[in-house]
Amino acid sequence: MADNKIPYKIYLEESEMPKAWYNVRADMKNKPAPLLNPATLKPMTAEELGHVFCDELVAQELNDTDAYIEIPEEIRSFYRMYRPSPLVRAYCLEKKLGTPAKIYYKFEGNNTSGSHKLNSAIAQAYYAKKQGLKGVTTETGAGQWGTALSMACAYLDLDCKVYMVKVSYEQKPFRREVMRTYGASVTPSPSETTEVGRKILQEHPGTTGSLGCAISEAVEAATTHEGYRYVLGSVLNQVLLHQSVIGLETQAALKKYDIKPDIIIGCAGGGSNLGGLISPFMGENLRGEANYKFIAVEPASCPSLTRGKFAYDFCDTGKVCPLAKMYSLGSGFIPSPNHAGGLRYHGMSSILSQLYHDGLMEARSVEQTAVFEAAEQFARVEGILPAPESSHAIRVAIDEALKCKETGEEKTIVFGLTGTGYFDMVAYEKFNNGEMSDYIPTDEDLKPGFDSLPKVD
Amino acid sequence: MADNKIPYKIYLEESEMPKAWYNVRADMKNKPAPLLNPATLKPMTAEELGHVFCDELVAQELNDTDAYIEIPEEIRSFYRMYRPSPLVRAYCLEKKLGTPAKIYYKFEGNNTSGSHKLNSAIAQAYYAKKQGLKGVTTETGAGQWGTALSMACAYLDLDCKVYMVKVSYEQKPFRREVMRTYGASVTPSPSETTEVGRKILQEHPGTTGSLGCAISEAVEAATTHEGYRYVLGSVLNQVLLHQSVIGLETQAALKKYDIKPDIIIGCAGGGSNLGGLISPFMGENLRGEANYKFIAVEPASCPSLTRGKFAYDFCDTGKVCPLAKMYSLGSGFIPSPNHAGGLRYHGMSSILSQLYHDGLMEARSVEQTAVFEAAEQFARVEGILPAPESSHAIRVAIDEALKCKETGEEKTIVFGLTGTGYFDMVAYEKFNNGEMSDYIPTDEDLKPGFDSLPKVD
Repeated sequence: MADNKIPYKIYLEESEMPKAWYNVRADMKNKPAPLLNPATLKPMTAEELGHVFCDELVAQELNDTDAYIEIPEEIRSFYRMYRPSPLVRAYCLEKKLGTPAKIYYKFEGNNTSGSHKLNSAIAQAYYAKKQGLKGVTTETGAGQWGTALSMACAYLDLDCKVYMVKVSYEQKPFRREVMRTYGASVTPSPSETTEVGRKILQEHPGTTGSLGCAISEAVEAATTHEGYRYVLGSVLNQVLLHQSVIGLETQAALKKYDIKPDIIIGCAGGGSNLGGLISPFMGENLRGEANYKFIAVEPASCPSLTRGKFAYDFCDTGKVCPLAKMYSLGSGFIPSPNHAGGLRYHGMSSILSQLYHDGLMEARSVEQTAVFEAAEQFARVEGILPAPESSHAIRVAIDEALKCKETGEEKTIVFGLTGTGYFDMVAYEKFNNGEMSDYIPTDEDLKPGFDSLPKVD
Repeated sequence: MADNKIPYKIYLEESEMPKAWYNVRADMKNKPAPLLNPATLKPMTAEELGHVFCDELVAQELNDTDAYIEIPEEIRSFYRMYRPSPLVRAYCLEKKLGTPAKIYYKFEGNNTSGSHKLNSAIAQAYYAKKQGLKGVTTETGAGQWGTALSMACAYLDLDCKVYMVKVSYEQKPFRREVMRTYGASVTPSPSETTEVGRKILQEHPGTTGSLGCAISEAVEAATTHEGYRYVLGSVLNQVLLHQSVIGLETQAALKKYDIKPDIIIGCAGGGSNLGGLISPFMGENLRGEANYKFIAVEPASCPSLTRGKFAYDFCDTGKVCPLAKMYSLGSGFIPSPNHAGGLRYHGMSSILSQLYHDGLMEARSVEQTAVFEAAEQFARVEGILPAPESSHAIRVAIDEALKCKETGEEKTIVFGLTGTGYFDMVAYEKFNNGEMSDYIPTDEDLKPGFDSLPKVD
């Protein structure tokens, strides 16, 4: 189809939306390593995981053989409220850059959670409801996941307890109110409401918190309240499974117009967006059907893939969670408070870690002022004010498009625009006032994190 | 087509998007009264208006004969960045209410300005650019219009000076940062930067401002800076013209599925959304082709249609603007500071005023706690956190749907969901904390406003 026939936004029909999630583990030769019981160092059994997670989600977590897992009709009906999300051709950005590259972005921000997080939130809340639970507990960093879960719980009439990383709680009071409007209770973490929170506060008074620490509190709250389970917005296999809806829709939209991407780019914190976006394309690569290039983009201030170690580590600061094999900066790593937005997690999804370790994906780290420059440039021509997290992917997409400008190559670049920055205006204000600075940890800075890695392998 | 075939979201193809705006004045028997020169009390000539507005916009302002005015390709290309907007079937709300009514909403919030305002902002900025101007000035209340104009100006590389009603400037600091990110300068109004601002501050020290006052300042700034013109986000004929894109898309989307609405509902501040949404449908009524019922919804605390006078009045507090014939509370009316969000303007579009005066449209006023109750209910089932302004329409849509529940009527209700409430969390917080109160002005409260009406007719 002629290039000029490609609309600004490619929407699938509701009937074309995916009916099953894609499980990339089924096509991986080297499967991601299993979660380990921190006491026995043996792989976690379904029964053990069942104390923390809903049964159906445990099954999904452990399933590395089925390539497709059906999306229940109730979840698909919720998806229809805000999906399909558009695959946008960035005509205006291309023009502004003067690049021969063709840029597309899958925009996941057109819902009140402001991000892709809703895709997994509704799935996890649905299975909790199906199991007859009273409610769920979780942590949230930048707030998108907490908002998404609150929305899903309000829809299904489930109770929702959110532990919010303190620095975000303070920088984003309005996020808290969105969650409260959806009926959730929100506690800044670390808090005095859990044993692990009290311990962390004692050891690190004045800490602004971290995702790892909020996870510990949420897990404790789930396991000490009758009828509750814990849910997590990233990192886990089940989350990447649910987020595959992003990649499946992208794949279908590209197919509709016979577009073949060269490079697929996503920001990476815990890996939920990146994993969801690239999974189906990675599947093509793994089956020898394609040869896409994948780039994970992470902040230079929290560089788990580019500078972390591939090892078993705790998923949380309080060390109450199972061990996961992943690229990690160590659960003792606490990112600099000058770092804006999410992507603050010390580790990385086991699936993505394995793929990266096997050389099937690239990774790049970028500094935050360069990220906000890209965000501003994008906002002014494409009309969408992006989240700082998403803007990491924009930065590298622009860099790749500018390379094409130099070489004259007409590459097709697809990136994930995970969300909007409407609750990140404190960071934008800093940038607008020229008060934003960069931070690259020295090896010395990273040492305490690495020292916290357990000795397992 | 069978009811169950109607998707959750009806999207037009880009090729189905309107190529011309619809000018309802062409079909009105009683045309809206012309703007008057405040000095001579004679109708403003194109030349006089040209000192304040761009030439092309003056022509549109005065044109009450052409039913269709072509949308320039440059504007249509900008529209394609964020339009068509979805017409959403509120399946989940219907189910929650248990109503036999069928509810649809045209959702205009999926863009960074968070509202429909972008539809006119890009048009006005485009004509300013085409005329070779340096920039534009404007006022903004809740902030959507200022954001929209900043976005349009950034896209076209025009300077943008925004006077922001002080109460919003203080309640919504993040709105200011969005505008700054798009390169606009933002001044809280009333300010010391204009003569009229200084005068208002002297007469009403400590005032939290009003749209009427910010308009005066913006007009003064435009007429005292070389190469600038003033632009306005509502009230004017030209704005309703541009906003007709909302109604035209809605009409086309309904037609696609052979849906015939019974009631069309919109919130009304200055009238831009309501006018834009209903214009094409009103045209059908005026031509005797249909018999839709229209309901304008306004806040009980700023009831220009339901309690105002139909008379010539100043559009601004400083009385520097032309006089418009409209339903008005008087330019001296200042709404209660406890009132959340926009819809704070003392007057109402001349077009809508005339239609209302001729009995072609109904109006209803609602109190704000009832509005936020509707907002919360809507958010929890439909997933979108609505703007307080838009929630006025939700309130009445729910009321009408509940009436259908009582009577068993299967009416089809369409309402305009103008935008999202992400920058209104101060108001939501008040509501969440049970601290929101209602305010209905007494006749005594309205007296100073009415006393400020000029003696013209």
